Amino acid sequence: MSLTSKLLVDIHTHVYLPRYTALLRSRTSVPFIRSTTTPEGATDDRLLILDHEPSGGRPVGSQYWDREEKLKFMDKHGIDVSIVRYAYESPIPHSRSSWSRDFTSTANPWLDFLPASKAQTLASELNNDLEEYCSTGPSLSSHEIKRLYGFGLLPLVPEITTSALVDVVHQIGNLPHLRGLIMGTRGIGKGLDDESLDPVWAAIEKAGLVVFLHPHYGVDASAWGDKYNGHVLPLALGFPFETTTAATRLILSGVFDKFPSLRLLLAHSGGALPALSSRLASCIDHDPVVASRLKHDARYYLGKLYLDAVAYGPEELGFASDILSRAPKYETTSSVVKNGADRSTGSKRMLFGTDHPFFPPLSMTEKWKSVVENLEAIEAVQGWSQEDKDGVRGGNAVSLFALDK
Amino acid sequence: MSLTSKLLVDIHTHVYLPRYTALLRSRTSVPFIRSTTTPEGATDDRLLILDHEPSGGRPVGSQYWDREEKLKFMDKHGIDVSIVRYAYESPIPHSRSSWSRDFTSTANPWLDFLPASKAQTLASELNNDLEEYCSTGPSLSSHEIKRLYGFGLLPLVPEITTSALVDVVHQIGNLPHLRGLIMGTRGIGKGLDDESLDPVWAAIEKAGLVVFLHPHYGVDASAWGDKYNGHVLPLALGFPFETTTAATRLILSGVFDKFPSLRLLLAHSGGALPALSSRLASCIDHDPVVASRLKHDARYYLGKLYLDAVAYGPEELGFASDILSRAPKYETTSSVVKNGADRSTGSKRMLFGTDHPFFPPLSMTEKWKSVVENLEAIEAVQGWSQEDKDGVRGGNAVSLFALDK
Repeated sequence: MSLTSKLLVDIHTHVYLPRYTALLRSRTSVPFIRSTTTPEGATDDRLLILDHEPSGGRPVGSQYWDREEKLKFMDKHGIDVSIVRYAYESPIPHSRSSWSRDFTSTANPWLDFLPASKAQTLASELNNDLEEYCSTGPSLSSHEIKRLYGFGLLPLVPEITTSALVDVVHQIGNLPHLRGLIMGTRGIGKGLDDESLDPVWAAIEKAGLVVFLHPHYGVDASAWGDKYNGHVLPLALGFPFETTTAATRLILSGVFDKFPSLRLLLAHSGGALPALSSRLASCIDHDPVVASRLKHDARYYLGKLYLDAVAYGPEELGFASDILSRAPKYETTSSVVKNGADRSTGSKRMLFGTDHPFFPPLSMTEKWKSVVENLEAIEAVQGWSQEDKDGVRGGNAVSLFALDK
Repeated sequence: MSLTSKLLVDIHTHVYLPRYTALLRSRTSVPFIRSTTTPEGATDDRLLILDHEPSGGRPVGSQYWDREEKLKFMDKHGIDVSIVRYAYESPIPHSRSSWSRDFTSTANPWLDFLPASKAQTLASELNNDLEEYCSTGPSLSSHEIKRLYGFGLLPLVPEITTSALVDVVHQIGNLPHLRGLIMGTRGIGKGLDDESLDPVWAAIEKAGLVVFLHPHYGVDASAWGDKYNGHVLPLALGFPFETTTAATRLILSGVFDKFPSLRLLLAHSGGALPALSSRLASCIDHDPVVASRLKHDARYYLGKLYLDAVAYGPEELGFASDILSRAPKYETTSSVVKNGADRSTGSKRMLFGTDHPFFPPLSMTEKWKSVVENLEAIEAVQGWSQEDKDGVRGGNAVSLFALDK
């Protein structure tokens, strides 16, 4: 057993880098960061994404951009390596009235608010920044491995050219500490099942980059009703619904038939996709429009996915693992009996994550509950061997992202 | 072992009764049924729910209302008893342009399109019709059990009074072959977390009726994008998302704390709720607005639910069962260790269903694939004993609906 098989690797962790926050600070219309000084003399930075935001914006601090803060968080939780990426959670205003727009606006503070040319330049600069953030950071003392790696980003905005996107894929592929790229669900405006993205998938597949698919917009907030439930519904349900929809549309578009080596990693253990995958297969089977479009049963394509292990419960992780394990049985040519599933096989495609710096504890604690719960969940999965658990904790990430190469 | 423990009972099966179709036939604006004669002399009945529907409407036939057709279907699949209810699937137009309105319109053909007074009268009449449909039907030869039982319906429309709703609950409770009631997710317009429904929940709890919660509206259809995927996305994802949202809002509203004996049965094995329940608990824990609102961890309340076994896969059913089994561990006062789960316990709250007459096979077959798959899934669940499987096939329904009483 190699030493690297015992590492704890966080593959779901967020960062805003200074160039990005500087851009937001330079702006005077949403999205922007407004800096004020409190009566006590402290700096109060607020991220505003909506005009006239009654809450005054979401407080943001050094945990969003300071590498030392990230490393301190990692040390506190025994995390050896983090694969960071630009924050892609929707910054959450504290007032309710702005809530629905928050999760449905196209003006969220990523690159969406920029024109294509500016987005392309900035994406490229931010990728270089991220490479520097990782490469100039510390290494693990016992290994030739850095403590920080990154997912790059693409200028996925309307009116960007395919060749511009492919150029940035190549850039990311050539930056040694970037091992994948982060992607939202909107593509260049029409979603990820847009055929004009085919050359982008081809380039990503060829470069061997992992695509981290992360939700951002949720679903139409009118679904949440009138009763104020804080941010629970959009975060607990809206995010996974969005990921589930995007991944399902990708399956239906035939992207996995066209690009069989594409490596797609879904946030939050794939959301609701594992639980709805047999229903999906049945609905496809019973719909004349799509019944013969795909090469395989829908469940087969779930075996192509990687899932983070950010589901907070052992039953959820074990189940997601079952769904990945059973996938090969649903290959059209498969003669494997469909009963039962070897839970261990699926564990090889699941990877620990924290979602830092989101979900901080409500009260001061030594360790973050959200992190502890995800680690405990991995330990408690029935049917996973210690080797499987070590894989989910870090060994799988070492292989998938070739951290020891 | 009693004879009734070996019955096959379908608790998820739809019917339109003549009074309802007569109403639709009498109308000249949507929703209505238009009857024409084909050049070959056959009658062509189409249900239209949208003005200027390019498809000409959804073909409807005797399988929607003829009791003999229902019994024939039951006989073909070895179903001893069915607990029917008014169709609550959205009739699906065949053209795409009308699709988004189909699943978001409030004018769906249930009682939504009626004024409160008319809805109240009709609900009451339809409940009497359904009682007659069941009571005048055949009995099982070997038992004192009828072959048909029903879920009544409430006039859940805006501006209905609470006392009118409570009256209909009492009516249903007094009709001997109605053992529960069907409910959509909108309540009287504001969803099921609307506090003005509290007296209705109280009356339902007191009457011991089972509430079958079934989706109807899906989610905002803009989530499905531009690519035409037939009806797969709204059916495979939209329906479960809707059920999941409604049940989550019920949990957050404290309804299960207020009415601890309420018996709620969720369609489609609870949709995405089991898979997202630990994420839900974590989001609640980390949100100051709701963190201390509920008596228990969110996962506890899932143990209060009943789920149909309409998920088309053994891993899905086994997982849903795990989630029900683990629920008592999340009672605030519980000292039970949270690791692992006894899959058998949860099976007691799961019940076979077919969704007939929806999901008919695309080609002629002896048995319907959708039904066969659900039966095979039950057989193949790992960790369920033969007794557990018999329970899900029918024994649990006999108990829950007191069919042998």
